[in-house]
Amino acid sequence: MAGSRRSFNSDNVAPVAPEVMAALARVNHGTVHSYGDDPETVRLGALLRECFETELSAYAVATGTAANALALATLVPPYGAVLCHELAHINTDECGAPEFYSGGAKLMALPGAGAKLGAAQLAGPVAHARAMGVHHVTPAAVSVSQATEWGRVYQRDELAELSAAAHGLGLAVHMDGARFGNALAHLRCSPAEATWKCGVDVLSFGATKNGALAAEAVVFFKPELAQAFELRRKRAGHLWSKSRYLSAQLNALLEGGLWLRHASHANALATRLAQGLGRHGIRLVQPVEANEVFAAMPAALVAHLHAQGFEFYEWPAPPGERSPVVRLVTAFDMAEGDVDAFIAAVAGHAAR
Amino acid sequence: MAGSRRSFNSDNVAPVAPEVMAALARVNHGTVHSYGDDPETVRLGALLRECFETELSAYAVATGTAANALALATLVPPYGAVLCHELAHINTDECGAPEFYSGGAKLMALPGAGAKLGAAQLAGPVAHARAMGVHHVTPAAVSVSQATEWGRVYQRDELAELSAAAHGLGLAVHMDGARFGNALAHLRCSPAEATWKCGVDVLSFGATKNGALAAEAVVFFKPELAQAFELRRKRAGHLWSKSRYLSAQLNALLEGGLWLRHASHANALATRLAQGLGRHGIRLVQPVEANEVFAAMPAALVAHLHAQGFEFYEWPAPPGERSPVVRLVTAFDMAEGDVDAFIAAVAGHAAR
Amino acid sequence: MAGSRRSFNSDNVAPVAPEVMAALARVNHGTVHSYGDDPETVRLGALLRECFETELSAYAVATGTAANALALATLVPPYGAVLCHELAHINTDECGAPEFYSGGAKLMALPGAGAKLGAAQLAGPVAHARAMGVHHVTPAAVSVSQATEWGRVYQRDELAELSAAAHGLGLAVHMDGARFGNALAHLRCSPAEATWKCGVDVLSFGATKNGALAAEAVVFFKPELAQAFELRRKRAGHLWSKSRYLSAQLNALLEGGLWLRHASHANALATRLAQGLGRHGIRLVQPVEANEVFAAMPAALVAHLHAQGFEFYEWPAPPGERSPVVRLVTAFDMAEGDVDAFIAAVAGHAAR
Amino acid sequence: MAGSRRSFNSDNVAPVAPEVMAALARVNHGTVHSYGDDPETVRLGALLRECFETELSAYAVATGTAANALALATLVPPYGAVLCHELAHINTDECGAPEFYSGGAKLMALPGAGAKLGAAQLAGPVAHARAMGVHHVTPAAVSVSQATEWGRVYQRDELAELSAAAHGLGLAVHMDGARFGNALAHLRCSPAEATWKCGVDVLSFGATKNGALAAEAVVFFKPELAQAFELRRKRAGHLWSKSRYLSAQLNALLEGGLWLRHASHANALATRLAQGLGRHGIRLVQPVEANEVFAAMPAALVAHLHAQGFEFYEWPAPPGERSPVVRLVTAFDMAEGDVDAFIAAVAGHAAR
Repeated sequence: MAGSRRSFNSDNVAPVAPEVMAALARVNHGTVHSYGDDPETVRLGALLRECFETELSAYAVATGTAANALALATLVPPYGAVLCHELAHINTDECGAPEFYSGGAKLMALPGAGAKLGAAQLAGPVAHARAMGVHHVTPAAVSVSQATEWGRVYQRDELAELSAAAHGLGLAVHMDGARFGNALAHLRCSPAEATWKCGVDVLSFGATKNGALAAEAVVFFKPELAQAFELRRKRAGHLWSKSRYLSAQLNALLEGGLWLRHASHANALATRLAQGLGRHGIRLVQPVEANEVFAAMPAALVAHLHAQGFEFYEWPAPPGERSPVVRLVTAFDMAEGDVDAFIAAVAGHAAR
Repeated sequence: MAGSRRSFNSDNVAPVAPEVMAALARVNHGTVHSYGDDPETVRLGALLRECFETELSAYAVATGTAANALALATLVPPYGAVLCHELAHINTDECGAPEFYSGGAKLMALPGAGAKLGAAQLAGPVAHARAMGVHHVTPAAVSVSQATEWGRVYQRDELAELSAAAHGLGLAVHMDGARFGNALAHLRCSPAEATWKCGVDVLSFGATKNGALAAEAVVFFKPELAQAFELRRKRAGHLWSKSRYLSAQLNALLEGGLWLRHASHANALATRLAQGLGRHGIRLVQPVEANEVFAAMPAALVAHLHAQGFEFYEWPAPPGERSPVVRLVTAFDMAEGDVDAFIAAVAGHAAR
Repeated sequence: MAGSRRSFNSDNVAPVAPEVMAALARVNHGTVHSYGDDPETVRLGALLRECFETELSAYAVATGTAANALALATLVPPYGAVLCHELAHINTDECGAPEFYSGGAKLMALPGAGAKLGAAQLAGPVAHARAMGVHHVTPAAVSVSQATEWGRVYQRDELAELSAAAHGLGLAVHMDGARFGNALAHLRCSPAEATWKCGVDVLSFGATKNGALAAEAVVFFKPELAQAFELRRKRAGHLWSKSRYLSAQLNALLEGGLWLRHASHANALATRLAQGLGRHGIRLVQPVEANEVFAAMPAALVAHLHAQGFEFYEWPAPPGERSPVVRLVTAFDMAEGDVDAFIAAVAGHAAR
Repeated sequence: MAGSRRSFNSDNVAPVAPEVMAALARVNHGTVHSYGDDPETVRLGALLRECFETELSAYAVATGTAANALALATLVPPYGAVLCHELAHINTDECGAPEFYSGGAKLMALPGAGAKLGAAQLAGPVAHARAMGVHHVTPAAVSVSQATEWGRVYQRDELAELSAAAHGLGLAVHMDGARFGNALAHLRCSPAEATWKCGVDVLSFGATKNGALAAEAVVFFKPELAQAFELRRKRAGHLWSKSRYLSAQLNALLEGGLWLRHASHANALATRLAQGLGRHGIRLVQPVEANEVFAAMPAALVAHLHAQGFEFYEWPAPPGERSPVVRLVTAFDMAEGDVDAFIAAVAGHAAR
């Protein structure tokens, strides 16, 4: 078991994919214009248009928090609101970035199983807000995480219904796709079918968790929404001077579909892990649809696994769950052996 | 002359130093904790403490705009003001980033030869602001660029006087060191002598222009000032999940003083360039002290050089200057031959 | 019944108390210094110190939203959070004012019967937020409404426990006292006992609903917290040039305890109204403790009353309540006859 | 001379006009809807439409700082800029309110005699800003003070040229009319001719300095620009619940042209004062066009007048002026005797 990868903390503990490192090396010669006026950045636009089979405006930034917050600030006025799930990363893990970037807009947090929003949840809060007139912030967008914070994936019809409801209410639709690749690998449809064809207006296309060094793309499927994005990005210090090195990461993952192979691999390992845990009586608290496994585990087992050097987070349990819950995240750089080693350690504890 | 580097646009058109690329490759294996809890980031702190010979708190970000704006937001309340030169990068080139990050603080722009502020310039505006009471924003910091936007370098006594004046007025001292290495190479003193020993409280330590991919460090010499920085950085989306790749860039430049060798090399090329231009009757509008040459050139010569494939910017002329002015920037990756090719092209035009 | 006051919409539909109008007339002669440097404003400080029997810093503004948002912005950094009830006025009725004034801080909304927070509710969210480190906004204050949005009043021991819990967690305690007079009239204790002796750090002392034209005071019981308030107020356009007319309103209400007589009167009318409704089988959904009555009413009765010219709002029903709920607000300018007319109209409908 | 008004500090040291007080008393009965849904507010719109002879959207707020900052925030994005005179009240006296309200937009301060901007001054800075692309904030509006901070009045043709230049550059035109009445009294044209017929898009219509208690109106001559204003006003705490008392002040001044009579009276007194000073050899540093007199006075005379109980401010001298400069402001509530007393005191000093 020596040498096995023992961290299931998050997909961002992984290193950078060799193809991405190679791309950085490949572009590392000579002078090119800075601040986005370089061939790699031009090519990024082309690759994304090809990938999503449509016209679009796309901008690279280094982090998911920046991608989400800048996207939302472009969609929502300071006196506006974003409807999202109460467990949404933008609501719980970004230290108020959407509020900061928007100039004080509000997140209106809604409940929902699997950290999913349903189409029927939007009309009520929006009607209430509008009935309040100037006394209430104005809902202007809905943001969904795909895959969700419980590792679930919106089906295309769920998403299409949600978007239709949102648009019917005058809300733009943002997708936090920090794990968009993992969601798409589960859906087995085209990127277009999973986004703009389902009504998504703006996508935070995640790459860092999927093999990049530090790169995400904000993709506007309605380019007219993007007008102010570039100024906001610069003003936030998220426009790289040596932009080729940001775009090249994304290009390396987009080319030949590496991003999807990475995501499919991570998903398959999560499924393997879930099945292995199941064989040893470990109960999942959510179905596994992407690359995250949420399992209820006795505290003694958690302690045993930590003692064996495995790293993973205990997770806030869903309502009604009495056992400790852990989150196990697989990634593109893991091997089946890494997962099997974890399962073996679980088995070892069970056998005692 | 084929193959020579023909862009004198900026030091950020350069590629990444091979040592930095090697460092990225070297750290690219295995899992490490994310968000700054990794060995490279720990080492960054140690290297900076060694470099500056003092206790300090340091935080890496990807861009100079982020470094400056986050540093200033930490020093200045929303109802505060930053005194700076009217040509300061923070005032002219960052799309209002300091205003955004601080929540609407104001830059109070002052004139000064060579884009330098003088110690005697501070008391007047501060006294005026304070006499205005609640009707005026409250000066809370002074920001100096080292090297300045005219390629000049504050001497240590100039800086010490300025800092003493600032501190005497209750202002913190921030240094925008996008080209700090170039300034230090000119000063030929220790990093400590050029910063905190001269009263600098916070330094934006630039590395991107000096060979990094995308990395700057915000260095607080009074760690108690840094309290809020980490939350502000996260909230701004400037905390990388794969933080090792940000810190490793800085470490590669700090180790063994590579950053200073780079800066000295660039400075020497700028001096060589200036001397070469002088031999052909081209007049400098500023003495060359770092890696930028500002020269008055006839429009015909400018056109000739552009036609030869040389890239550089025409620059707003200083008051009283009637000839077109150009900015020529040298960098760590240039060779003497690149500079000589430029001089030869000037000579060629003169000979016609 | 001709001439009876038929609006139970809110206490802010009332006119200005004659004593307040007289005070405005009394100060309306001669020149005085502007922007707070006037005798009425000096006297306001003295009257509040006398009223609250302690040293304090107090600042007048024209609206409750301004009072709350400016107070909270002084207590909470942009990357901070305010714990409050999910029904708190600051969370639901101020169009994001706290978020705007603080530069994007977040309200962490908690549930609770009667729109009250309990001491035991604070530790969990604060511990969670702190465990999240830089990924989560930092709780910095708790805000309570006294009386609450369900017309309830925190008992002194409830408040003392809540404040002790808050202070133990490093949170400042803000009280939205838009109806502080009504709460105090219910508590029958001194203003000091109901505020700083129970751990309140900052009070938005409401006067507009209680007979003023447009005046509230932000009262800092820990004057050192007030440092930045004056600059924030000016910057927000809430510093009146003719400040005497703002302070004089508050002074007129404070002098001789007019504010408390107003509040007691309104409370007595609310109790009378509740009792009258009870005699006709109308069920209250909250006990009446201040000047608001929340009653479950059949839709037909609501329609009947509206048809009779009575004005009042239907209100979002509490969880589990199936009948329509209405809010009836009494005020200082109402007479017993106004309340009796309403009860008579209810009786008339019942008799049909 | 006993009883004469001795403060020439500002027009805001004056009391409230009796007609305004009477209007407050007149509306002070019965209940009306709050938050702007009242007859006085409806009437305000009608009176302003009549006054300006055009369709418009108008909103009342209590202070000039609020009026200006809210107006500008509606016109300019956070990454935008406002061109204004370096002495503009918004730039020097509002503690950064425009920066706060806009979310960090920048004021681009321009020089100009008499605190006036000229049409020819706009193109250069706008072209520079646009050439800088994303690196520079985007000019979106120009703001002029009418009368200016040097007590000067833009002629209609000056204003029309300036507006045409602004509109040609895509900038909206805002007028800070804290002393609009005084400017209009000087221009002797209709309010329409002095505003929208000269290209003004939004006017901060000042009333506080002209006899109100605390009231200004933000007047949008292009109502489509006003869309977001109401939400911004509420969010800033500038929407009064008892809105009738805000609108009634403005209505009292608008009715029958009281505002213009007040302004004409104050202007006439300023002219009388200037002429009297001239007879005693006191030199003006600006022509008197509105209700402010800026005069160069020996320090001994300043001291003498202060010793006599006259109040006025020493003022930053214009470039090249070596003598102390004072500002003397007249107001609607002054009498000729007040001015004559001041002149007599000057004469008394001269005679010594």
